[in-house]
Amino acid sequence: MSLIVQKFGGTSVGTTEKIKAVAEKVAGFRDQGHDMVVVVSAMSGETNRLISLASDVQEKPDPREMDVLVSTGEQVTIALLCMALKAKGYDARSYTGGQVKILTDSAHMKARIQNIDVDNMRADLDAGRVVVVAGFQGVDEAGNITTLGRGGSDTTGVALAAALKADECQIYTDVDGVYTTDPRVVDSARRLDKITFEEMLEMASQGSKVLQIRSVEFAGKYKVPLRVLSSFVDGPGTLITLDEENETMEQPVVSGIAFNRDEAKISILGVPDAPGVASKVLSPIGDANIEIDVIVQNVAADNTNAITFTVHKNDLEKAKSVLAGVAEDLGAREVVGDDKIAKISIVGVGMRSHAGVASKMFKTLANENINIQMITTSEIKITVIIEEKYLELAVRALHSAFELDK
Amino acid sequence: MSLIVQKFGGTSVGTTEKIKAVAEKVAGFRDQGHDMVVVVSAMSGETNRLISLASDVQEKPDPREMDVLVSTGEQVTIALLCMALKAKGYDARSYTGGQVKILTDSAHMKARIQNIDVDNMRADLDAGRVVVVAGFQGVDEAGNITTLGRGGSDTTGVALAAALKADECQIYTDVDGVYTTDPRVVDSARRLDKITFEEMLEMASQGSKVLQIRSVEFAGKYKVPLRVLSSFVDGPGTLITLDEENETMEQPVVSGIAFNRDEAKISILGVPDAPGVASKVLSPIGDANIEIDVIVQNVAADNTNAITFTVHKNDLEKAKSVLAGVAEDLGAREVVGDDKIAKISIVGVGMRSHAGVASKMFKTLANENINIQMITTSEIKITVIIEEKYLELAVRALHSAFELDK
Repeated sequence: MSLIVQKFGGTSVGTTEKIKAVAEKVAGFRDQGHDMVVVVSAMSGETNRLISLASDVQEKPDPREMDVLVSTGEQVTIALLCMALKAKGYDARSYTGGQVKILTDSAHMKARIQNIDVDNMRADLDAGRVVVVAGFQGVDEAGNITTLGRGGSDTTGVALAAALKADECQIYTDVDGVYTTDPRVVDSARRLDKITFEEMLEMASQGSKVLQIRSVEFAGKYKVPLRVLSSFVDGPGTLITLDEENETMEQPVVSGIAFNRDEAKISILGVPDAPGVASKVLSPIGDANIEIDVIVQNVAADNTNAITFTVHKNDLEKAKSVLAGVAEDLGAREVVGDDKIAKISIVGVGMRSHAGVASKMFKTLANENINIQMITTSEIKITVIIEEKYLELAVRALHSAFELDK
Repeated sequence: MSLIVQKFGGTSVGTTEKIKAVAEKVAGFRDQGHDMVVVVSAMSGETNRLISLASDVQEKPDPREMDVLVSTGEQVTIALLCMALKAKGYDARSYTGGQVKILTDSAHMKARIQNIDVDNMRADLDAGRVVVVAGFQGVDEAGNITTLGRGGSDTTGVALAAALKADECQIYTDVDGVYTTDPRVVDSARRLDKITFEEMLEMASQGSKVLQIRSVEFAGKYKVPLRVLSSFVDGPGTLITLDEENETMEQPVVSGIAFNRDEAKISILGVPDAPGVASKVLSPIGDANIEIDVIVQNVAADNTNAITFTVHKNDLEKAKSVLAGVAEDLGAREVVGDDKIAKISIVGVGMRSHAGVASKMFKTLANENINIQMITTSEIKITVIIEEKYLELAVRALHSAFELDK
């Protein structure tokens, strides 16, 4: 008998029929003798409906009141799921974030969990009840309703699992696991049985949007075994675990390929090669609230520097105009932007100890006549920027070269 | 400068446009320097939508979870109203029933208010904020969400006004006040400037459904001046006040005419004239959960008793079958039912001290050839049961006879 925390997202609870199906699934685990805590999101569409009501009323809705408003979405779902469980003869009790209570800071719409009171939940579990908790929401010290930001229900699930020392946290989504790459791009993309937290972080931040990145960090930090499964198709899903060195040795070197076409590249060329230049270039970008992803700096033949970084495509023009002023101050030659780029990363804990992974990646791209514009590497990832139109070709070639379809 | 509690019902906040109009109205009072506490219901249709979701999931929805579910309706409205006020530049803060906190007993779906904590609201009012509170909901000692039952937002408004010792509690509805009788039946029905709590109770319980009867009782008990106004038409509405004896003397004897066509009459005839008979007849009806309204007992010429009472039309057949058994036990002659009846009451605090009101009522009906089937009287009301088809004729004749259109 284990304690399992399950989290069902908006599409999994999108209708009363689907909520009944979730109840059925939970009941199945309960029948096996497991203690069950279930975290749910708002019914799909509901959060958007509420946000649209708010924007009818106030151009930039007040954050405190926005949290009061949108937190009703999950509150509806917890009540309906408890009713569905009771209709099947299973005792259940619902909790809002405030009732649990999930204590957060006071940063409305992006609050962070500080503490979770497990006493009520423990008492319910001991009494044989299924505990149903509203995801995405909490309460601050003063009793104000807070939300963790969109998609934060995953984080709620992991945080509850950590607080309750659950045996497993199962995140149900509309995909049946984490894949070697996006199956819409590569037909032979394969579901992974296991992936490490670190690999998952790299996969998620690179665009394989299966889980909220924050929830993965959280799970890694608190060592909560996390499993991604499909709400609609039965199967083992993908288990996200700690990297156990001896297991890794037997694993493939590269676990997956992540990619992203939402970024643009911006370069400032002919910058003097002097201390403090990178900071002078990048600080104004940060001050303008533009998020930077990849950064590369290199020395050119004329002993000047070139600094290139990527931003979201939507921020390209803003970043260029910020840099225009900076370039003048620094006496830099020019600022150039390009939004026809794509980012591809190969990810794998195994590559730490294997030489030749990078060269295999570059050679594979060269064989397809794909020019590499930027390269960055980390312990478990190699990222390249290429021309956008070659994205699919590159991903397929790499997927095959690293034998991810095997 | 006064402290005013305003309550807006579901139709008054049915769309975001209407919520903005409510904000406008509240802002107008704020501009006059009043401290404002606003109680709102769920947007019209929302509660029914939620109830229908629940009945999709569980045949007889669990009361605790039902309260978790339906309380989201008002929570949406408080957030939107605060946003609308902030959009106009007025500071405002929303509170759910649990946040205020409005402490109730644990009777889900029909909870009763036990205590209201006014500290948070006072602090907000002192800081110049409009306080917006979710109607209809509270929280029990254990932190469970409760609701006061449908329409309970009026009660929330009155209870807050009592707790805050407000100068006035204004209930906004879709009518512009309390009328001498239903304007749909009598063209010349007239809005009353004032009515006493007791008269209002009789009017409300007799079918003039302007205010929830419970909220009127509450307002009377705590001496909260209550005003009924229209959300959509400007005007003074009707003030519901304590009966000050000297004022009453100048008031018309009869304030209004209430009526009801939802009842059926049931008689048990030829009952032995002996102690305990009424109880033997009526107890089984109560045991069958049938609500009884008017009861009349009289002795017939043959020294047997006739007991007649009214029940809701829907309960007539059930009541008859219960009574069939009782009649046999008692040796009564027969049980007869009639659902083609109507109930009419004239209501007025003034009639206490005026003879002749009853005889004027009976004479007016006689002049129209309307037969009176039953009569009951109380301190401030005379009620008759007549054949249903004469209802409109009777109401118009009485309205004119008591000069209510003047």
